[in-house]
Parts: sequence; C-alpha cells; structure tokens
Amino acid sequence: MAVKVGDSLPSVELHEETPQVKINIADEVKGKKVIIFGVPGAFTPGCSATHLPGYLEKADELKKKGISEIICVSVNDAFVMKAWSDHNKAQGKVRFLADPNLEFTKKLGVEHEIPVLGGWRSKRYSMVVDDGKITQLNIEPDGTGLSCSLAEGLKI
Amino acid sequence: MAVKVGDSLPSVELHEETPQVKINIADEVKGKKVIIFGVPGAFTPGCSATHLPGYLEKADELKKKGISEIICVSVNDAFVMKAWSDHNKAQGKVRFLADPNLEFTKKLGVEHEIPVLGGWRSKRYSMVVDDGKITQLNIEPDGTGLSCSLAEGLKI
Repeated sequence: MAVKVGDSLPSVELHEETPQVKINIADEVKGKKVIIFGVPGAFTPGCSATHLPGYLEKADELKKKGISEIICVSVNDAFVMKAWSDHNKAQGKVRFLADPNLEFTKKLGVEHEIPVLGGWRSKRYSMVVDDGKITQLNIEPDGTGLSCSLAEGLKI
Repeated sequence: MAVKVGDSLPSVELHEETPQVKINIADEVKGKKVIIFGVPGAFTPGCSATHLPGYLEKADELKKKGISEIICVSVNDAFVMKAWSDHNKAQGKVRFLADPNLEFTKKLGVEHEIPVLGGWRSKRYSMVVDDGKITQLNIEPDGTGLSCSLAEGLKI
C-alpha cells in the first residue's frame, strides 16, 4: 500500500552520482521543506520531455517560495542518474538520487512493473515533504501518466 | 554455463533505440562477420572510459579488415543505451543493443550480479561471430575487469 499524506518519509539510503555516495533521505530532509518526484526511468521520453523539464523550469521559483531542495528519484543506477542530470544541466536545480534496488520505491509503495524497461521501476509521483512528513502527494493513477504529478500540480 | 567457441549465437530479441524496435540478434548476424561486446552498465566508469572507447577508436580499422558490424550489448533499457550511444557519438561505428530482461545475457551464460547497480547485469566480454557461429570469445574472469575483452584482444 502506498504512503499517504501525514506519513513520515522512510529512512532509506539512496545513491548520488556514484554508488559510493549514500544519502539517507530521511536525514537529508530533516528541518527542510523539499519536493521529491519519482519517475519511471532516466532518459525515457515522458520523463525527459515533460516531467523533468517542468521541475527544472520552476526550480528557481519554487526555491524562492521556500522549497530548500527538489529531488528526482528513479530506479536506475547512480551512473545513469548522473548522466541524466548532466545531460539536462540540472545541477543546482534538481538533485538526482538513484534507487537501484527499489528500497525507497517499495517503502513508499509506488513500485510498478514495466517489462520493456527490464522489470520493476517506480510509478510517477510528486510529493512535498515538510520536516520529514509528507504534506502533499500525487501518484499517477496509471503509474506512468503525466497529469497530477507535474510541477504545476503542487501547491507551494 | 557460458557459451564457448563453436557455439551458435542464441536467437533472442534485443532493443535498439526504443523498446519498440526489436532486433533478433541471430537473424541480424547471418552471413556477416561481427564483433559483439558486452558491458556491465551504460555510463559506468570502466565501460565509458576504457572498454567502449577502444572499440570506437578501432571501428574503422576493424571494418576495413572485414568486420561488418560492432555491437555493444548491456543490461540497460533501450532509452539509456540510446543516450549512451548519443553521448559517445557512436552512431555509424558501434550499434548499441539493449537486453533489459537479460534474455541474451542469460542465454550466453554471462550474467553477473552487481548489487550496487541494482542486480543482475552482464559480465564484460567480447566475441567474434562469423555467420552465426562464435569464433573468438573473451569473458573477463572476474566479470568486470578490463583485460582480455578489450578491443586489442581480438585477432581480426
């Protein structure tokens, strides 16, 4: 079952840039208001053409409104996530965290099977997390659609 | 158990550029002499800095010596493989085929668990396939090392 508004963010390690850099997401968001969005796959068309660009474009605006960080999570390895970040010149706007073993994705209850990508990935979602508590949450009903989880869908 | 010299290449579908473009590798290599090399992961340091560049640099030379195609296979999805190809300006030199579900990799018997990348990937290997038969084969003994499977290791 998926998490819901009011739940705490799970304490799970994600990778940033390389598998050696482990980020405990619960520790990382303590005392901050952050946006986390999840995508089915780095470099996939929906994520690259629509989902990610919305957050990149709005990053400055969202940060002026009190968002400390915007974090993108995907079930890819850290090297692929770093390459996707570089390709999109996302540094300084959106952090890319890798969840290669689905630990975070499963704790959120948003795992989703996509055989053409090789198996289990993440549903597309967005959330606002305030000092570790989920205060807004939008999970795409079909898993991969581009509707409620877009940057415009968050009330900041 | 891994394939050996003299075996036929298995008949398996791989993806090229998108999951919709399915390439039966056994059909693809009929009547041709091709090089196939396998890597643990797109965008990973060993594959990006050493393994792939050797084949890119030698592509023209190898093709002058009678190699019809050079094919790189990895257990990544087609979108990541396309991005890795674009990043390396590999088009026209090396084709990138995706084996997201390990079908080809398992039939070759070269699957290898790499938990930091999220699970099962491919050992690093190189082979020459002449009209569907494996005539040279170099599988890295430790799975991921950069020794016998480098472009220099093939006798063309």
